[in-house]
Amino acid sequence: MFKKEIKVIDCTVRDGGLMNQWQFSEKFVQNVYNALADAGVDYMEIGYLSSQAAFDAKKFGPWKFCQEKDLRKIIGDGEKRIKLSAMADIGRIEECDIPMVDDSSLDMIRIACYVHQVDAAIALAHHCQEKGYETTINLMAVSTVGLRELNECLEDLNKSRVPVIYLVDSFGAFYCEDIDTLAQKYMERLPGKIIGAHFHNNQQLAFANTISSVICGINYLDATLYGMGRGAGNCPTELLLSFLKNPKFNVRPLIKVIEEEILPWREKIDWGYFIPYMVGGVMNQHPRAAMACMESDKKNQITEFYDQMTSAASGI
Amino acid sequence: MFKKEIKVIDCTVRDGGLMNQWQFSEKFVQNVYNALADAGVDYMEIGYLSSQAAFDAKKFGPWKFCQEKDLRKIIGDGEKRIKLSAMADIGRIEECDIPMVDDSSLDMIRIACYVHQVDAAIALAHHCQEKGYETTINLMAVSTVGLRELNECLEDLNKSRVPVIYLVDSFGAFYCEDIDTLAQKYMERLPGKIIGAHFHNNQQLAFANTISSVICGINYLDATLYGMGRGAGNCPTELLLSFLKNPKFNVRPLIKVIEEEILPWREKIDWGYFIPYMVGGVMNQHPRAAMACMESDKKNQITEFYDQMTSAASGI
Repeated sequence: MFKKEIKVIDCTVRDGGLMNQWQFSEKFVQNVYNALADAGVDYMEIGYLSSQAAFDAKKFGPWKFCQEKDLRKIIGDGEKRIKLSAMADIGRIEECDIPMVDDSSLDMIRIACYVHQVDAAIALAHHCQEKGYETTINLMAVSTVGLRELNECLEDLNKSRVPVIYLVDSFGAFYCEDIDTLAQKYMERLPGKIIGAHFHNNQQLAFANTISSVICGINYLDATLYGMGRGAGNCPTELLLSFLKNPKFNVRPLIKVIEEEILPWREKIDWGYFIPYMVGGVMNQHPRAAMACMESDKKNQITEFYDQMTSAASGI
Repeated sequence: MFKKEIKVIDCTVRDGGLMNQWQFSEKFVQNVYNALADAGVDYMEIGYLSSQAAFDAKKFGPWKFCQEKDLRKIIGDGEKRIKLSAMADIGRIEECDIPMVDDSSLDMIRIACYVHQVDAAIALAHHCQEKGYETTINLMAVSTVGLRELNECLEDLNKSRVPVIYLVDSFGAFYCEDIDTLAQKYMERLPGKIIGAHFHNNQQLAFANTISSVICGINYLDATLYGMGRGAGNCPTELLLSFLKNPKFNVRPLIKVIEEEILPWREKIDWGYFIPYMVGGVMNQHPRAAMACMESDKKNQITEFYDQMTSAASGI
């Protein structure tokens, strides 16, 4: 009893790349690309679309930029096997750097923005639509946004031509009851639009909240292989496909690419459930403090981290 | 807005001990005992109650047996700081080996049984009640039990004098919709009884399903520190206390004891989200095959494990 409206967007390279500056080998990205295609995943988000002027290209792998020449290396000579998506952050891409869709291997551009950037996000999304792309707006960190501000923002998004609006739990702070409440609000205030879900796993709830989203009628679902993503990571793609039961999905290619490409990275970098990320999620905080702790030589000094976070929050 | 009827039972030593044959030091158990008491947790499940005749005492630490002399070492000379529970498996304890409650430091004995053992479990629970203990029956592996059999079993439990009956997801196979359906059934068929929840984390759903249980009216909640427990482990106590918002709870002592006692074990043994456990959960299988894989030198050969499990299931 699957829902055919549901689309799964695997963000392993894009969100996982936040943990290693997108230093993935070409073989890694090719193997992920083929595994996602074999598994029947609908979209592969292959990185960020950034202007090279905005970043030092030496510090970052190619998936910070998603240039056409790099995309072509992954696709090879044959037909593209899965729709490709890239994420654009407001202020980090010039409109003139975005090619027409016919000159690009990308199918979809997703605009990530905070609530105060929504007007700029709508303008950029409309620009991408005019160039022929599918577009979404991913409204980040709504767990910190006040009710009036959120309502106004949703009103602006409702008036836009952007067809897909994402509910994003950037800090891994939401319980399933929050998803129910917000999904209902998004659907009431954005009639006719498709709603998407992108969650972080600070409280081991990314998959559960994605299930809650499906029950609420959310149809675009983000996930990453083995949950690889910033901080605590994301909803694992292998769990999501097992749950969804669409006969077009096949979990085995995901298990195989996790074995070959993801487990070796898991030896080198720490995403997933760790107490600093849990504390950040419970306190509804940006993961930067927890990530700094995890990257330091104090990653196991979790009581000190807890004390710092809680005394900072209470203003002591 | 906490619910005062809710009781949290931390099972770290009992369920975590399944991963190391209960080879915890006295200091470990004392520190967990004091941390749980400081945190306001309601019960500490300190191990299994087993007859020494049933097991080779050399192979197992003291918490396989929960003898009074060992309990006294943990409590020390002062008053007991938290209620203590032990679990008894059918067939592994003789009634004559259970002391009267006045001669024991235990407050509660929980009887774990499969559906076909329910009559023996009720008899043992009644015996423990007559000796003065609080009792529960924890009906394991209900994800594999047919509807008629489950209904008959609940009818027997309903006729018993046992006041608390647990819904147990031994294999980590349940989604939150399963919890809703089963919690409703348990409450309809067991009017007047308290329902408990004990979940495993194979699909990263132990905490989420515990939240679903709370929403359904389940009031006895099992958890373990950092999720330490058999296979994929359990609902983490630190997440559960953060969610429950009862002002008597304090998360800091849990963070501290995780730092001091649990993280060192996490370096030595693997519980939590690993693909073999995930595959077992999705397939609703006993974790023994996944545990054997994880303990072998093939723990990263997850495609081979997946193929073995799926071909075994399809009978090929």
